[in-house]
This record gives sequence, C-alpha cells and structure tokens, in this order.
Amino acid sequence: MDKFISVADIADPLGGYGENLKQLLDLMGSYQKQPLKDSEIGRGKTIGLLFFNPSLRTRMSTIKASQNLGMQVISMNTSNDGWALETADGTVMDQGSAEHIKEAAAVMGTYCDLLAIRSFPSLKDRKSDYAEQVINGFVANAGVPVINLESATLHPLQSLTDVFTIDSLSKKDKPKVVLTWAPHVKALPQSVANSFAEWMQHYDCDLTIANPSGFDLSEKYRGDVTVMHDQDAALKDADFVYVKNWSAFEDYGTVGDFPDWKITAEKMKLTNDAALLHCLPVRRNVVIDDAVLDSEQSHVIQQAGNRVLAAQAVIKTIIS
Amino acid sequence: MDKFISVADIADPLGGYGENLKQLLDLMGSYQKQPLKDSEIGRGKTIGLLFFNPSLRTRMSTIKASQNLGMQVISMNTSNDGWALETADGTVMDQGSAEHIKEAAAVMGTYCDLLAIRSFPSLKDRKSDYAEQVINGFVANAGVPVINLESATLHPLQSLTDVFTIDSLSKKDKPKVVLTWAPHVKALPQSVANSFAEWMQHYDCDLTIANPSGFDLSEKYRGDVTVMHDQDAALKDADFVYVKNWSAFEDYGTVGDFPDWKITAEKMKLTNDAALLHCLPVRRNVVIDDAVLDSEQSHVIQQAGNRVLAAQAVIKTIIS
Amino acid sequence: MDKFISVADIADPLGGYGENLKQLLDLMGSYQKQPLKDSEIGRGKTIGLLFFNPSLRTRMSTIKASQNLGMQVISMNTSNDGWALETADGTVMDQGSAEHIKEAAAVMGTYCDLLAIRSFPSLKDRKSDYAEQVINGFVANAGVPVINLESATLHPLQSLTDVFTIDSLSKKDKPKVVLTWAPHVKALPQSVANSFAEWMQHYDCDLTIANPSGFDLSEKYRGDVTVMHDQDAALKDADFVYVKNWSAFEDYGTVGDFPDWKITAEKMKLTNDAALLHCLPVRRNVVIDDAVLDSEQSHVIQQAGNRVLAAQAVIKTIIS
Repeated sequence: MDKFISVADIADPLGGYGENLKQLLDLMGSYQKQPLKDSEIGRGKTIGLLFFNPSLRTRMSTIKASQNLGMQVISMNTSNDGWALETADGTVMDQGSAEHIKEAAAVMGTYCDLLAIRSFPSLKDRKSDYAEQVINGFVANAGVPVINLESATLHPLQSLTDVFTIDSLSKKDKPKVVLTWAPHVKALPQSVANSFAEWMQHYDCDLTIANPSGFDLSEKYRGDVTVMHDQDAALKDADFVYVKNWSAFEDYGTVGDFPDWKITAEKMKLTNDAALLHCLPVRRNVVIDDAVLDSEQSHVIQQAGNRVLAAQAVIKTIIS
Repeated sequence: MDKFISVADIADPLGGYGENLKQLLDLMGSYQKQPLKDSEIGRGKTIGLLFFNPSLRTRMSTIKASQNLGMQVISMNTSNDGWALETADGTVMDQGSAEHIKEAAAVMGTYCDLLAIRSFPSLKDRKSDYAEQVINGFVANAGVPVINLESATLHPLQSLTDVFTIDSLSKKDKPKVVLTWAPHVKALPQSVANSFAEWMQHYDCDLTIANPSGFDLSEKYRGDVTVMHDQDAALKDADFVYVKNWSAFEDYGTVGDFPDWKITAEKMKLTNDAALLHCLPVRRNVVIDDAVLDSEQSHVIQQAGNRVLAAQAVIKTIIS
Repeated sequence: MDKFISVADIADPLGGYGENLKQLLDLMGSYQKQPLKDSEIGRGKTIGLLFFNPSLRTRMSTIKASQNLGMQVISMNTSNDGWALETADGTVMDQGSAEHIKEAAAVMGTYCDLLAIRSFPSLKDRKSDYAEQVINGFVANAGVPVINLESATLHPLQSLTDVFTIDSLSKKDKPKVVLTWAPHVKALPQSVANSFAEWMQHYDCDLTIANPSGFDLSEKYRGDVTVMHDQDAALKDADFVYVKNWSAFEDYGTVGDFPDWKITAEKMKLTNDAALLHCLPVRRNVVIDDAVLDSEQSHVIQQAGNRVLAAQAVIKTIIS
C-alpha cells in the first residue's frame, strides 16, 4: 500500500478487496489487544500531519497511533502555523496564496517519511470539491506516501474504523446495515457518508441508504446500493444504524430541513435492537436524541476509540 | 490520587492533608535534584492536554514534566484545533456548540491515560463559573484521571508549586505569609488566589489576605483566614509577599481601581525583608514595580521553574 | 558556540570564519549520510520553539532536526498559545502586552535547555526592527542558548543551508553567485537577503547583488559586495542565481513595482547554466516563472530539504 486515499488503495491485484481488508481488520484486532506490539517499527521515521481544518478525534487518534509505532510526529495547522496554498497549475500567484502545493508538498515530503492531510470541501463548487485538488496535489507532489485524514469527498480512516466496529459487534453473518441521513443546522461534507457507502460494499452485509429525496449521494460512491426515501421503512429490522448528516450532492451544499429524520428512541424500536453508530461530533437532540445516545444501543465512544486501531494499522502497513 | 482538581484530592483518609502534601513536596524535591529519575515510569502512556485558553508556563511545564516521565504528549487548543463544547444536559444543540462534553471527554479518555484541562471562567456569571462545568464535565465523563491546569475557580498546580517554593525559601518555622491583591487593567479570575488560600491553610504558616474592601475572596476558599483591607498593615513583618490581582467575587468580575495597592520598593520595606512571589505573567509597573521585580527579593522565576516539579509529582502520583 | 543569531556567532577566535564554517558544513554532510548518527546526544534535553509568526519549513525542519538528535521538543505559537510580549525597559504595562520579555524568556529558559525564536519585523519602523528587540531580549534574559529562526533582520539557518547547498552543487572553485531581487506583491523582510549577503562573504565565491535602484540592502550586511542595478548584466555567466524579494531598506518597507525583474527562462539563458535557488515560499509566475521552477536548473526543493541539516548541525554544536 503506497497511499491511503480511498478504498481503491486496498484493492487486491485481481480487483477484489477481501484479502487486504481482512489483513487490516486482523491487524486492528491485534493492536486492540497489544497496542505497543510494533512500538519499534517506526523508530527514526517521521509522520507529518497537516490540518487545513479543525480536528479532535482524527488528530488525537493519528498522533496516538503514530506514537504507538514509535514514530516522530510533526503536527501543523495551516491556518495558524503555515501558509495558504495554491493548487491550480500555471496561476500567476499575485493574490492570497503565498505558496503552491507543488513546493509545499515536495518540501514536507523531504522532511517526513509519510504525510497525512485533512482538507474539507468548500461545499460551494461541486466540481472543484470532487476534483480533490488538495489531497491529489499532495499525492502527486509529496514524493512520500500520503494518508487521507478526511478530504473533500472521502474519509477512509473513519470507514475502516466503521467496518471494524461493525465486524466486532455483529452477532450474525450478513447483518442489515442502514446508513441514514439525519438533520443538522449546518452544511456538512458528504465525505463520511460517501466513504462509508464505498467501504461497506466490500464487507459482507445487507446495506441500505436512507435519505430524504434530493439528498442522494453521488452515484460514484453509493454504486447500486438500495436508496430509500422513507426512513421508517429503511430502519425496519436493521442490525446497525449508522447515523450521519450530509448536505445535498444534487443541489450542492444545501442543508436539508427535515426534523422528522432525527433518530429517536421511537425510531430505534423499528430496528432489530440495532447498534447505533455515528462518527462524532454529534449535536445532541438535533441529530440523535439523548435517550438514544445515552442508551446501551449506542456504541459511538467505542467506535471513536477504534480510530486509533485504524490509523495504526494503515500507518504500519504503509511503512513496512 | 485519582484526579487533581482541588486540594481535597490530596486529603488523607482521616481528613488531614499533612501526609500526602509532605509526600508530594518530597517528590518535588527529589525531581529538583534528579529530573529524569522516573523517566521510564510513563513509557507507553499518553497524556492529553486540552487548552480552552492561552497558556505559556502551564503548557510548557506540563509538557516538560510529562516528557521527563517518558510519557507521550498530545497537546490541543480548542479554539483552533477542535470544537466548541456544550456542557449543559438536555440541550437541543442547534447553536454554536458542535459537540457535547459527554462525547468529547469520553473520546479523549479512550485515547489518553490521563487528561489535563485548562478552562477559564467567563467572569460574567458567577454561579455558572463556580459550578465548574467544564472541569467537572471532564471528570464525570472522561473515564480516566483528570488534572486541573487552571479551571474557572482553582489552579492547584500553581498552589502546590507555591507551597513548595515557600517551603524551600523559608528560613523559619511558621513564616508570616501575606497574599495581597494588586492592581490590574483587566478582569482576572480568582482562581490563583482561591487556590493559594485553600492550600496554604494546610501548610504551617501565619496567613493573611490583604485586599481592598469589596474584593474579599469566596468564603468557600478563604475559610477563616484573616482578611485585612489595609495593605500596609498587612505587609508588616511579612516573610513572604504573594502578589496577585483578582476581579471581584462580590460585584462579580469587576476590576478594582486601586493604584495605591501596587507593590513598590517602599511597600516591601514594611516587610521582614520578605521574599516576593507572583504566579506570572505580571504587568510591570502596574502590579509590581521594576525595582521590586528586579531586586533580590523577587523569586518569581524560580517559582515558575518549580511548576515542572509540581506537574511531575502529580502526574507520577496519579499514574503509579 | 553559545548562541546562533548571526554569522558573528561562528567567528573563529582570530576573527576569521573558515574553521567553524567548515566544521558546520562537514557536520551537515555527515548528517546527510547518517541522519541518526547523533540520536542519543540530546537525550533528556528540551528545545523550546517559539513562533511569533507563521512557519512551515523552519518549524518542520527544526523539529525534525531536534528529534533526530533525540531531544524533547516543545513548540508554541505566541499568537494563539501564549501572550503578547513587552520588550521595552521601564514601561508601565497598562496596554496590550500581558508579559515582559524579561520574565517570558527567563521562565522559558528554566524549562528548556535551548530556545529557538522566530520574530518578523514590523517593516514600519526601521530603527526598531534593526534593533532586534525580541531576539536580543531572549538572548539577554533566557539564561540558555538561543537560536534565530528568522528575526527582524537575519535568517542564519537559511544562510547556512544556502552555503551548504551551493558548496554541494558547485562544480568549480570560486563560482559566480548572484543574489537577485525579484518582484512580489507584499512587503517582505530583508532578513534572508541580509543574511545571505553576510554569510556568502565568508565563502570563497564571486558574489554580486542585483536589485533595482532604491532597494540596496543595509550596508551593515552587504559590506563591500558589488551591487548592480542592471539585472541582465549581473546575471551574465552566473553559476548560481539566488532569487529573493525584499522590501526597501531606504524608503523602509515599501514594495517595489518592477515586474521586469521576474526570473524567466529567457533571463536564465544569460547565465552559465546556473543553478537556481530560492528559500521558499515562492509565488509562481510573480517571482519566478513556472518554466524555471519546473526546470532542471531549479534546486529549491533540495535546498529546503537541507534546512534539517543546518538546524541539526547548529543544535548539535550548541548542546555538545
């Protein structure tokens, strides 16, 4: 594995995903039991973390994972610690950006053995966001492996975490998993949902996506997964309910006003005593009710804790 | 010791403080001679530092102490690195806060073996500030020990440092210690003064608090310590002068306009050649004159240096 | 070496520079081959990095260098992590600054074995900028060695890097080196250019400075180096072209409007197939054309990479 940007980076030579995904899940399981078992493997190696946007879980879990592998960590915020970057080719750079991604990525690549980048979408220009200029610019210019810490359209470390969490909690083969849209007050990226849809298609489950009409995800990521516009019908007999808000892909970046899509105790009763997952942060009583988040059905803290395992398995696989 | 929020956390089983306080002071003394004597004790453990407010001394001394114990350190600023947190129960989170302290604390607790939190008061709502919602929210939800890096009302690492510094410098049993209010241009928390008053009541000294009328500290923390509203009378024969501004507890958060309370060389002559202490930062010639800060009576740099010893002793005691 | 502020800090006892400069260059060469050969030398020592201004290369390369030497690193930004500092003596500090450099430097010096400071000029008050109050205030008050990570007027780690890079690339004795001004949209410090001029005078080369009339550097740093106001004439037969914008020293801080000074492929043809250097960040097509930056003549990434070697050699020399 020479980078970790999307699920495509763990494709097997013949196009399947089973073998590499299984290896990552097994490695995560082994780190869950022995976090420091590979604590010498990164000795003398440096990972550079670059945040164009705020981060709590991703920052802490990736730092922790890197330290568990014995690596040196350099963490930077571009807004305060660095410079605004230009990504377009051929620009006369007489405006706000003081540096081109060509130089920034190449220089960081000379200092680090591995770079990890977080860069959110604008949610204003779909074409530009879906072109993934920042993360692709780093991949093209860094000269070292790049890990996606949530880009404009994808969040693969979250998705690998989610697969592991579902696999750990599942009591049956081929569980019914429902990814459901839920309300929010701000326009949020589609990245977690895109990525979850993309990854779960390579895990043996019965996957349904529930969202209001007008909020279908990009076909590129949802593929031919069943999409339902009736949340109650979708939740029926679910073994896992994965809750997440996203802004519209169609009328790009608009916030949906569908308060009825909030996850309540009542809604959870429609499921097969489902386990509730959410990537966090979550706005209580807007997205999910207190009664659900504080119930035994919620596994969101355990899920967030598993982020360390995903980061550690990916970093280990890349530097080995 | 399972947390370090106030002096109560070092209470002996029978309600006294002597035994545990003495152990911490002895440990600090040993780290003063051999900073790295326990450099293996924290190996493989992670401390998470979370700053809701700026910090120089507290940040650097706590990082240094943690590194001296061989720990991994993850330091974050909420304003730039993370999210605003909601602390109230049952809120419909449709306003500024993107995450509840319940999730934030629990998640950070899964990544770290120990959390350390700085969170200043608003100085606008006394009841809310004195409820200590942030630090108590972390204690209630983190699932790991929490250290107070200055909360809305207390700053115990500073106070432990102060006890040690006074104990190191004192040339006699039961020295006369005066905590005196001094002028400032901004409304400052009462935390350092509250905490100093609270801790010094468990150290064998003759303690007086001097402040202008209307600036008495909360009775909860000053207990039955003598309070004088005449600074000159209070300073008489003092062996230690601990200088600190605080805004009013009574007319909550107001700044006092008492320029005569500035500590000058003239004022220091009233004392028994007293040692001057201040937690820093200090506004020169507003709080204390240059002539005093630059004199041999000032021990403020040594005092700040001792912050490492306090943090190291507390962290070591908690993780052992 | 007890500090690293300007080239004067590596002066030989008899006033020459050859011996110490050669030792630093040799050490850099050895770190290029074996980055971790001194990985135990800094064990138990702490370097504190303080940034009053943004930094990417300097931050990452200095952290990397420190970690390569086994040091503990504490990195802070004053704007977000700390306090504004007062530098003038005797001030009544009732305005914006909450702390005096006397205390801040002394306290940081008690926590760290070595401090490294970045502090840009105002570009408004030449006398104040050239007095170097911040970096000199740290040297005077820290009580530990101080390294200049770019001060108001100098950037010696960059210059040591530049000498090494030119020495590595040079195919002949006494190459012709041209430091040329180039256009920019913002007022930039003179520090990189001052420092380059200062250091290159101690390296065996034929040095020319090219800049528009009115943009001569301070005589203090350019000494008696040839200054030409005709860029084309200066570039003729150059072996190295070092490109950098700076704002005016004479009409202090003004931006020059000389688009013809941009470095183009056409201009590079005047040279002896010169190697192009620039300290980065660089605004493409404003300072230097894409065609030059993307050509084989550009060595700017390698040059930036060498920053680690310079920082590592300087830190090692100071702590040994």
